[in-house]
Amino acid sequence: MTERHQEPAARASATSDQSDQKETGRLEAFSDGVFAIAVTLLVLDFKVPKPADLPAGPGALGTHGLLAALLTQWPTLLAYLTSFVTILVMWVNHHLLFGLIRRTDHLFLYLNGLLLLFVTFVPFPTALVAAYLGRPGATAAAALYSATFFCIALVYNALWRHASRDRRLLDSAATPAAIAEIDRSYRFGPPLYGLAFLLAFVNLTASLLTCLALAVFFSITGSRSRR
Amino acid sequence: MTERHQEPAARASATSDQSDQKETGRLEAFSDGVFAIAVTLLVLDFKVPKPADLPAGPGALGTHGLLAALLTQWPTLLAYLTSFVTILVMWVNHHLLFGLIRRTDHLFLYLNGLLLLFVTFVPFPTALVAAYLGRPGATAAAALYSATFFCIALVYNALWRHASRDRRLLDSAATPAAIAEIDRSYRFGPPLYGLAFLLAFVNLTASLLTCLALAVFFSITGSRSRR
Amino acid sequence: MTERHQEPAARASATSDQSDQKETGRLEAFSDGVFAIAVTLLVLDFKVPKPADLPAGPGALGTHGLLAALLTQWPTLLAYLTSFVTILVMWVNHHLLFGLIRRTDHLFLYLNGLLLLFVTFVPFPTALVAAYLGRPGATAAAALYSATFFCIALVYNALWRHASRDRRLLDSAATPAAIAEIDRSYRFGPPLYGLAFLLAFVNLTASLLTCLALAVFFSITGSRSRR
Amino acid sequence: MTERHQEPAARASATSDQSDQKETGRLEAFSDGVFAIAVTLLVLDFKVPKPADLPAGPGALGTHGLLAALLTQWPTLLAYLTSFVTILVMWVNHHLLFGLIRRTDHLFLYLNGLLLLFVTFVPFPTALVAAYLGRPGATAAAALYSATFFCIALVYNALWRHASRDRRLLDSAATPAAIAEIDRSYRFGPPLYGLAFLLAFVNLTASLLTCLALAVFFSITGSRSRR
Repeated sequence: MTERHQEPAARASATSDQSDQKETGRLEAFSDGVFAIAVTLLVLDFKVPKPADLPAGPGALGTHGLLAALLTQWPTLLAYLTSFVTILVMWVNHHLLFGLIRRTDHLFLYLNGLLLLFVTFVPFPTALVAAYLGRPGATAAAALYSATFFCIALVYNALWRHASRDRRLLDSAATPAAIAEIDRSYRFGPPLYGLAFLLAFVNLTASLLTCLALAVFFSITGSRSRR
Repeated sequence: MTERHQEPAARASATSDQSDQKETGRLEAFSDGVFAIAVTLLVLDFKVPKPADLPAGPGALGTHGLLAALLTQWPTLLAYLTSFVTILVMWVNHHLLFGLIRRTDHLFLYLNGLLLLFVTFVPFPTALVAAYLGRPGATAAAALYSATFFCIALVYNALWRHASRDRRLLDSAATPAAIAEIDRSYRFGPPLYGLAFLLAFVNLTASLLTCLALAVFFSITGSRSRR
Repeated sequence: MTERHQEPAARASATSDQSDQKETGRLEAFSDGVFAIAVTLLVLDFKVPKPADLPAGPGALGTHGLLAALLTQWPTLLAYLTSFVTILVMWVNHHLLFGLIRRTDHLFLYLNGLLLLFVTFVPFPTALVAAYLGRPGATAAAALYSATFFCIALVYNALWRHASRDRRLLDSAATPAAIAEIDRSYRFGPPLYGLAFLLAFVNLTASLLTCLALAVFFSITGSRSRR
Repeated sequence: MTERHQEPAARASATSDQSDQKETGRLEAFSDGVFAIAVTLLVLDFKVPKPADLPAGPGALGTHGLLAALLTQWPTLLAYLTSFVTILVMWVNHHLLFGLIRRTDHLFLYLNGLLLLFVTFVPFPTALVAAYLGRPGATAAAALYSATFFCIALVYNALWRHASRDRRLLDSAATPAAIAEIDRSYRFGPPLYGLAFLLAFVNLTASLLTCLALAVFFSITGSRSRR
């Protein structure tokens, strides 16, 4: 029978654990909602060409006219894919991070809010890149785009450092290996997105492809930390 | 008392089962958010006619003027209905699939992400079909529309094959009959949506009606697999 | 000890109860997402007046110019309030209904889908009413608006009849009084929204005010059924 | 064995507690969805400058042209930041409030609905401020903006007073200290947002900065009440 009776202190701690978990649960649910909406709003960047704007000429007003008009939207497709994959990878990382966290505190709540601020902002630089790729102004668009991801990488590091210092907010079940894995993979974010930002001033394509490559890279390192 | 004591190994596995379920739970919640937003954004395709654009003429500026203007939006209504029903059926299928799944792994997470990529894209070809049905360019619109569903059908098959091979990610309670049912109904998706894609080049109406019929078809087969 | 051992049949039924609840839970969560998005999209009907469109004249370009321009949007405000309150009441009713339901079946799933189809459609007739109130075409706008709510009332009745016939999908804890209360309050929906539809052809203001009054009415009857 | 047997009355109360918690849970989830969508829609205020609208002139059509066009959107950025932080703080407060609440009743449900009505409205005055800051009409925009927050502060007070009077809807575990803390911090909302409203007629910048400062202020008092 002794197993079933808990000491008052242990019982209080169990209650507090439960309310902690309810709290991280609601924070995760709210963040998930923001990620899901930000990722779904990206599709609004694709514009339906107006019938009157289709290229004129013999046979051009048929299928080939619309197809041609759609094909000119390839920068939108590239920006859409890069932003979608990046937000998805961020969501997976957020998910992994919360898997190791058991408690929240005030600073954590607001660092997470800052993260969501930048995540909800992503559709705007994405739309800028879609509109200006291959035109004058593309440098500014690519710089703002990579700068947004650079800020997100910085905030992720701040969030993780705050939570993991002295295992402050971590679940007692978080293994040193899992912690070290996140330490290692997060460390690459700011310098690599900083590089993408600098590349925007040299070579636009290189800057965008770096962002896409980084999303793939973080999806792989995220993968390793999940094993 | 023996029932209450678990062997360490069994206990570890119970813990891991619980964390697995938390993980599939959060993945389901995120996916649900994306499905819900994609399905709700479809309404933005309906355009409020500008009062100045209403057909002029005797008595035409009254109710009948607006009614007439609204009736010209029937392609939007058709596209809205088809996309709504299709996304709803996809959501039901996603739901059924997750009912048999207990674990996730890295590839599963990204295949699900690819699925969501195509789901969030649906509002754009829907808007294209709404704008171009009955005009030059309709073929390209219908082709892109059915191609999107074709890709979704392919990704659903990949997701299911990955999860069900050697029952890799399945719940131990998943019955062979339920598995065989999904195997059977998913197999029809790619060829039938491929057919809708080809029909876009022959007969637009047939292509769109095929998409609508497929949504109904999958709702029925989904229904059988639920019993 | 006998209490702890369940007969195999009872155990199977407990498992199935649990999976039923998980199922209604996910259906509720998806529906909640759709309601929440539909209600939030309504704000997009308010248009920021373009500075160039403000009424010109001495002193008119100052605060009073923007204020005057905003005040011309009162139909948007009225439509926004009516639609917001109506969707909120629908959500509360959905919530009450699911409180009595334990199981879902295929038809229930698709009737709920049909309900969501009409709920996601609400922002469009709301925008029409906002744009056409007090102009030619208002009758068509008000008719479509009330017809949408009429359809929603019909689907709610179908959903509830299907679930409650022979207590098919109901929780065994649902009391006859709670069931009778819902029976009674739902019965009023179709005729009263039908009346609002007919009023659209006679007196627009009366039609809109009926919709607003009905939302208040259902919020009160919903209230009684909660006690 | 006596511990495991509950008196019928106690059992009924346990069941009712559980259904109460399910109810506050679903209300929280719905509210979270609305907060998450409202906060994410704010990004739609940023407008992609049309390439043709970029400032012309020597060298002006390059990066500097787009940069210059983006920099003119600083009022949008300021309004975006203020609204984002304010909605985030509101969400945190909503979360804290629900942490002390165990039951809902009808009036609570509708006061919460009124709160959501104003929260979903926030993107519109935000867009107005973004469009009119530094132009004629800014006073009306800033007045509507601060008036919206003033109303939200009033509704929060009504919601909390209704819930906390005689501890009507509170969890029995809510401590008097936590209750007094919320009492104290909520009391400041209406007069301070009322001040921001009055400042709109005197000094726009002061009014907006007051709103931003209040968000920071409530984030700090919210923080204290969490300890």
